[in-house]
Order: sequence, then C-alpha cells, then structure tokens
Amino acid sequence: MKPYVIGIDMGGTNTVFGIVDARGAVIASSSIKTAKHSNFDDYVDELYTEITKLIKENGAEDKVHGIGIGAPNANYYTGEISDGVNLPWPSPIPLVQKIQDKFGIPVAATNDANAAAIGEMTYGVARGLKDFIMITLGTGVGSGIVINGQVVYGHDGFAGELGHVTMKRNNGRLCGCGRTGCLEAYCSATGVARTAREFLEIRNEDSLLRNLDIESITSKDVYDAATAGDKLAKDVFEYTGNILGEALADFTVFSSPEAFVLFGGLAKSGELLMRPLRESMNRNMMSIFKGKPKLLLSDLKEADAAILGASALGWEAKMPATAAPEA
Amino acid sequence: MKPYVIGIDMGGTNTVFGIVDARGAVIASSSIKTAKHSNFDDYVDELYTEITKLIKENGAEDKVHGIGIGAPNANYYTGEISDGVNLPWPSPIPLVQKIQDKFGIPVAATNDANAAAIGEMTYGVARGLKDFIMITLGTGVGSGIVINGQVVYGHDGFAGELGHVTMKRNNGRLCGCGRTGCLEAYCSATGVARTAREFLEIRNEDSLLRNLDIESITSKDVYDAATAGDKLAKDVFEYTGNILGEALADFTVFSSPEAFVLFGGLAKSGELLMRPLRESMNRNMMSIFKGKPKLLLSDLKEADAAILGASALGWEAKMPATAAPEA
Repeated sequence: MKPYVIGIDMGGTNTVFGIVDARGAVIASSSIKTAKHSNFDDYVDELYTEITKLIKENGAEDKVHGIGIGAPNANYYTGEISDGVNLPWPSPIPLVQKIQDKFGIPVAATNDANAAAIGEMTYGVARGLKDFIMITLGTGVGSGIVINGQVVYGHDGFAGELGHVTMKRNNGRLCGCGRTGCLEAYCSATGVARTAREFLEIRNEDSLLRNLDIESITSKDVYDAATAGDKLAKDVFEYTGNILGEALADFTVFSSPEAFVLFGGLAKSGELLMRPLRESMNRNMMSIFKGKPKLLLSDLKEADAAILGASALGWEAKMPATAAPEA
Repeated sequence: MKPYVIGIDMGGTNTVFGIVDARGAVIASSSIKTAKHSNFDDYVDELYTEITKLIKENGAEDKVHGIGIGAPNANYYTGEISDGVNLPWPSPIPLVQKIQDKFGIPVAATNDANAAAIGEMTYGVARGLKDFIMITLGTGVGSGIVINGQVVYGHDGFAGELGHVTMKRNNGRLCGCGRTGCLEAYCSATGVARTAREFLEIRNEDSLLRNLDIESITSKDVYDAATAGDKLAKDVFEYTGNILGEALADFTVFSSPEAFVLFGGLAKSGELLMRPLRESMNRNMMSIFKGKPKLLLSDLKEADAAILGASALGWEAKMPATAAPEA
C-alpha cells in the first residue's frame, strides 16, 4: 500500500489539508479560502493545484493511497454535501466525485464530527476503544458515534446528529435546524453566549460581562470572566455542564459507550465545564451505567486534528467500480 | 449444521420454550412456571427435564445446534442476569453457564427486547433491514437496536435501554429504575394506566373509566373505553403517542434507522396510538430525517415471537473455549 494519505478539512472559511503518513504524522500542510470561488469546479481546481504543489515539495508523487475529507453535512454513502449551509455552492455538492475525477485517486468523505471520531480512534485518546461517542463542542454541537469499532452512519448516512436531541421540550431556544430546545442551542459556543445574555437580562447582580456590549458577548468572554471569578459567568458554565450531562446520560442508555471524547473550543474550559458536567452525568445516569462511561478530552493538536481525522478515512477509500456497459 | 435450535423465553411468571427449525417454524413448544423453585439449580433441572421430553417427543435427539435465551436483564457478554428484579434467585444469576453445563450444547442469552429484535430480523417484519430499532411496549418499555445488521450490545452488554431516556425533566413520574421522567413511566402499559388515573383526578369531565376502581384501571380498560368513544380515554392515547413520537424523533438523530418495529400489548392499540404517534414523530423530526423512518408493527404470532427471537440466538451460540490448564 502507498505510504501516504491526504486529509482535507473543509470549513466554511478555510479548507486545510495535509499529507499524513501511516503513523499519523502530518508531513506537511497548507490551506486555501473555501468561499473564494463562486463555482465549485474552480474551488476543486485550486485545491488540486495547491495539493499537487504540496505533494511535489515533499517528494510524495505516486505515493498517495487516497484522500479523506471531513466537511459539514458530507454524507459517507453518497459522497455529497447534502446541505452546504455555509458554502457558496448549490446543494447537493458532488464532493467526492468531483475531487476523485480531478485527482484520479480514491476519495472518501464524511461529516467533520465523524472524521474527528475516526481521527481519535486511529491516532488519539480513543485508540483501542471500540465503543465511544465523540462530541464536538464548537460553534455547533456535532457527534461521531463508534460502535464495535465502526462509525455509525445509519440507514441514509446521516446518523449521529446528537446536537439535535431535544433537551428542553417547553419554551426551548430556537435552534439553527429550525426546531426548538436542541442540545446545540445550549451546549455550543453560541449556546454559552446565549445563556450569558439570558442570565444578564434576567438577573440583577453585578458581572464583568456587563462591561461588554451584550449582543457581541462570545463564549470566550464568558470563559475569561468565569476564570476571573465572576459568579454569573461561572453559573453559565454550571448551566451548560448540567444540560450536557443530562444529554450524555441519555446517550449512554442508547449505546453504552466506554467513553465520551470531547473536542472543540468549549472542551478546553477545564473544570469550569467538566465539574458540573461530571456531576450532572452521574446524577442523571441510570444505575447500571453509573460511573462507567469515561469522559476523555481530545489531546490531538487542534491544527492537526481535523486533517488527521479526515486523512484516516483516506486509508479505506476505494475507487468506485466502473459502471457496467449497457447491453 | 444440526437442523434445530431451542428458544427459551424466561419471564417473571412463565418460562416458555420451543424447538425451532431453520425456517423459523416452531415445531413444538411448552412452558414451566419460572418462580416455582427457590433454588436456581432446581429450576434448571426442571427446564432440562421438560425440554428433553419435548426433544424426544419430536425425534430431535442430537439434532439441536444450540439454545438461545431471552430474559430480562440478561447480558450477552457475561451470560448472566445482572439484576433479576422479578426472579426468586440472588443476582447475578449465571444463566448461560448453568444451562450449558446441564445440556452440554452451546447457549447464548440476551435481554428479551434484543431477542425480539433478532427474531424480527430473522423471521419477522425486519427481514432484510440492516438498521432498525425494536421498541417493546409491554409492562415496561424495552428496546433492541440493530445497526449494520448487528444488535448493539455496547461496551458492557447493557446498551439499548431506551425505555430509560428522560422525557420529562421537570416533575417527571417516578420510574421503576429509581429516576424520574423516563419514557417507560409514560409509554408502557403501566404508564398508560397511570396517565388515565392522572387525567381522572385532574379533569372533571365524565368518562366510562369513572365506573371502575381508579386504582385498578389497566391499559386494557383505557383501550376499551377509547374504542367505545370515551373522550378522556382517547386523550390518554393522544398523550402517550405524543411522548413516544418525541422519543422516536430523538432516537432517529442517533442511529438514523430505516424503521422502528413496535411490539407488545400497547402496539396493538391501532390508530388510537399510531395516529398521534405518527403526527408527533413528524412534528418533532429533524428536517433531514422527516418522513424517512418507517413505523412497522411486528406480525409474529405473540405466542411464537418470544421463542423465535430467543431461538435465533441459538444459531450463533458457541461452546466456550476450554480454559488452559494451569502450569
């Protein structure tokens, strides 16, 4: 088997990519702006030019086994981006087909959270685990579910949307998905900022956050205030951890994972989030599971994690069977 | 391979068992009382005597490949009943080992809902489906989750306790598991009776159910009243279907199943339950899954279903490897 794979992490703003070896070392990496081209073919052309350059610079010509791509809403089965919410091209976007045609090597794609789960399983804290759930706490809440060593894609390739279980059935916040009360509306970076704004409106107490423009408060502002000892900001993390713990307890009765792996900006909040999360998870856990699922934090370098996760998919990518000629 | 398997369905009251052929025909069946013996070994002895008799009567000596057992809280990995709540023997009960030692043929066990899922996949409405979730609506709410053609056992063998996701986070009903607000406290036969009692207490309207002793109302009474056009009783099914639909919509974001298979007494309530269930499921479903998961009703004969489900496990049962002699 050829010694390298290419990992591509396609985000709304940047597309980062790298050459990865079988031991998970990122040999070289680079990036392009995702939304520069109004035509998807032009985006693929620029990607081809830049990746080819990277390959040549690193003497990796003819040594790339496959390409793995992580992209929001990318479907493992169809190879398409079903709903490119933050992308400038019409959906569905034929991601795998276009890139495979251009590069002439096997390509596989899945959504970014599934890619992260594969990355953790192959190179990260989930090495050796056969049953775990990856939770990405970023702008949204994503998830990648691994059961028996395999990512759960479900009947149609869209399984693992755990950011959209309903946590508040009454008076829940409007979620980006159009429904209300979703986990993502509370336990994402955006959710934390929303909670802070809610608390500031409802409560009268002093808070460092009152020095900021309330509409532009970010989860980072809340983190900084909490770290400085601000009571209201600490309560925001308490509230967030509590809801996340309720959710993880519910997920446990589904697949009884050995661990939850947390990844993303919010996961770096330390004990501010982890203490209330642990407490809530234990309080809400069904007794046969109590104390069982571990809470692990991803230890992959943020810059490499996305590339590594996507690249791991490149090892299993296969060229499609040639269509049978018509009789 | 030998042409028969034995299926044993162990309930709190009765243990039913039968000889099943490879096409899923129950050749012969019988039953014993589960709780007659205060000693588990005596129970196994009686089971052995009765099953051996059945085998002889049907000329199946030396033709039984294995034994499959469905029992509440039986663990596929350990072969034990971890928590024999309704059984007269101390937990954990070494179910598989004792029965294997006695019969000298391979034995496998799992909980009753997983056994039902295997039965549906092998012989029932889930034939050909690789991703589905079995929901058993009986005294409690059980589940068996199938992903990629395999039952999900999870890290410790206890996965698939979907009756214990939290549906009401505030003021939820006490559940048999010790927590509050579980799906099972609302959408089981017991839950339906509880809802009826609640409605009768809270509301003033007339109802056929007021002619009954409120404390002894059963889900069957509620069904009969609803069928006779009773408004309050119909509202009970509306309420039940609504909560079940919320739950199935949440389960869908987890594993994106092709279908939910409903089984058990409540599942026979027809449109009284199915209409509000369908409506609630659609209303609560994340848009990418809307209209996708099918709602199927088990069509296995109730008397055979439990035996068939358990028996299917008998085909894959293996004798344990002999322990290495000590050096």
